[in-house]
Amino acid sequence: MTFSLSKIINLDPPTFVPDAVIVGAGVIGLSIAWRLSQKGMRVVIVDPKPLGGASWVAAGMLAPVSEANPGEEELVRLGLKSLQRYPSFVKELEDFSQMEVGYISSGTLEVGLDANDRAEIEFLHSFRSKLGLETKLLDSTATRKVEPSLSPGIQASVSIEQEHQVDNRLLCQALLKAVYLGGGYFYQATIAELKFDEKKPLKTLVAENGIKISSPNIVIAAGAWSGDIKGIIPQLPIYPIKGQTLRVRLPESYLGYQKIIRGLAKGYHVYMVPRKHGEIIIGATVEDKGFDTTITVEGIYELLRNITSLLPNISEATIEETLAGLRPGSPNNAPILGSFATQGLFVATGHYRNGILLTPVTSDALSDCVIDQVDPAYIEYFSPNRFLKDA
Amino acid sequence: MTFSLSKIINLDPPTFVPDAVIVGAGVIGLSIAWRLSQKGMRVVIVDPKPLGGASWVAAGMLAPVSEANPGEEELVRLGLKSLQRYPSFVKELEDFSQMEVGYISSGTLEVGLDANDRAEIEFLHSFRSKLGLETKLLDSTATRKVEPSLSPGIQASVSIEQEHQVDNRLLCQALLKAVYLGGGYFYQATIAELKFDEKKPLKTLVAENGIKISSPNIVIAAGAWSGDIKGIIPQLPIYPIKGQTLRVRLPESYLGYQKIIRGLAKGYHVYMVPRKHGEIIIGATVEDKGFDTTITVEGIYELLRNITSLLPNISEATIEETLAGLRPGSPNNAPILGSFATQGLFVATGHYRNGILLTPVTSDALSDCVIDQVDPAYIEYFSPNRFLKDA
Repeated sequence: MTFSLSKIINLDPPTFVPDAVIVGAGVIGLSIAWRLSQKGMRVVIVDPKPLGGASWVAAGMLAPVSEANPGEEELVRLGLKSLQRYPSFVKELEDFSQMEVGYISSGTLEVGLDANDRAEIEFLHSFRSKLGLETKLLDSTATRKVEPSLSPGIQASVSIEQEHQVDNRLLCQALLKAVYLGGGYFYQATIAELKFDEKKPLKTLVAENGIKISSPNIVIAAGAWSGDIKGIIPQLPIYPIKGQTLRVRLPESYLGYQKIIRGLAKGYHVYMVPRKHGEIIIGATVEDKGFDTTITVEGIYELLRNITSLLPNISEATIEETLAGLRPGSPNNAPILGSFATQGLFVATGHYRNGILLTPVTSDALSDCVIDQVDPAYIEYFSPNRFLKDA
Repeated sequence: MTFSLSKIINLDPPTFVPDAVIVGAGVIGLSIAWRLSQKGMRVVIVDPKPLGGASWVAAGMLAPVSEANPGEEELVRLGLKSLQRYPSFVKELEDFSQMEVGYISSGTLEVGLDANDRAEIEFLHSFRSKLGLETKLLDSTATRKVEPSLSPGIQASVSIEQEHQVDNRLLCQALLKAVYLGGGYFYQATIAELKFDEKKPLKTLVAENGIKISSPNIVIAAGAWSGDIKGIIPQLPIYPIKGQTLRVRLPESYLGYQKIIRGLAKGYHVYMVPRKHGEIIIGATVEDKGFDTTITVEGIYELLRNITSLLPNISEATIEETLAGLRPGSPNNAPILGSFATQGLFVATGHYRNGILLTPVTSDALSDCVIDQVDPAYIEYFSPNRFLKDA
């Protein structure tokens, strides 16, 4: 990181009553905190390890189209809205934080290795076209014209021009700095429980160390850990979905990757996101293993096998980092956004594979929720109250 | 490491004239230094980074038989001599250092995955039998009786009962401690040049920082770096051979590997050495890349592919460490051992893949060379003077 976390994080619990407490210092929690502080609120962010979750492990693809699967039409709409908001969001954040976040208009190439992969690519192309999404089907020759390093065996691809990338780690750092510059207050602790009385405006968060923090507004944005806080009704159906990733670097002579490559290699999904200066992020496994972040032989082997079958040149890369993160999984892969029945209690989690993409729209929506005490219409579908048993 | 290097290494250059200076603090240099100090010599070991070379990366296989290839008969004889010496060497070292070094009589199983691998295994079995080595050919069923975790596809194997293992890292630490307890003196520096005058008994080593150390006896044991010291005649034909390795750990439920498994998987060599408590060392690539110790996609991918094709259960392991070392390669893979034409100048390097195995015999031979000023007959074949141009 270009600046030390320890310099900008105050470890003491706050002695005042903040206007809002955000539980979770990933991109979602930080962006909401930043927005609220811009609107004049005094905010506190509570997290045992800021940026210790999925935000730091992510690849930063802004991919509402290539992530679009049947049954997820509402999610696609939200993703496209956030994608459209990205350039202005980045400009605001970069101006405020005085840091660059590596937003690049690269486009995605989604490739299929064998005949079955080709069939799947064609199916997704047709599904997305029906949704009105702009995708273009390319044959093998046309695909390798776009990206000559691809294996000659590639059967077909879909080119998606409007998908971009952001450097998730630069985004993390810029948001952290923005919250700090905006007067936000950090407290390193794990929240165990929420206590409230419908008749009283102040809600109280109790940390594992026993310290309490009260505020009229509480936003739960704790990623995969959001379901573990006691006292929230309904309990959030969030579960961790492990993703192992690799960060590799190609020798200078091999540079020149422009596009994000997503691929199906004999039925296995893999992607690679080329950063400036030769760093490449390769991901990601999708594993239901609980709160486990170990790096496994199987996970790393499959990523390496799949990516080298698509892009043989990657063999020459050096491995700089292997790491695993826990995505906040939720029913039908849709995030949980907005206010609970309890006034002053809000949530923004369950972003699954789309946390970086959905950061702008989530921060806009949730800051509006808190300030106006009314949820904007475009997040209605994602309300936490859909999980109330009598709903 | 179980004790800190910094506690036992004195960083200052010595102010006395030692009886011998050893260049290189790997297992070879340390074991020679220990032996010489036991015989009453005051020794200094010079190394920029003690245990920073191949010794720490090795797997600790004691494998003169499964490493035996045509043309290497002299090397096999030396290896067998060292293997025979191992139990008493370990006992002496463990008694002196009061540390265990994890010597285990495990045996090796050398397996072949497909028909071509089987043919190669059978050829090696026949070659080794002709050398009088004890190896036993097993068919697929018999192989899987010995090690049920092996892939059902395994075609054949050779069982080598007399090959064992030592925990190379425990060996490193025990030797370091033994040198320290024996009164040896460490100096952290890179030796750039040797200066001497045939008429004077003292030879002088000049470090990169300009500091000089003089002694009547100099032993070059700097592994892959041994050829880089100026002023040595003949210049040693040593070149670094990179090896990438993995250290993984299996869940408790999978434990039970006893034997070292070496294998040919579709023509690719791979091995795995099971330690006590579930750690497994997987190795190793053999690469001619100069002084490069990067971890590459190709290297790690091939190791994972090859080992999981032999032992599918390894997929469940967690990856704890990836690292690369530089073996000291030499012509016809034979070490370079003994005295130069210049009196008081000795060498012990070029151990290639056999450094851990050859530690006992090398330390015995070189300490005899220094004390007696005559090379023992059994290392004659390995003399550095074979590289003199007029020889």
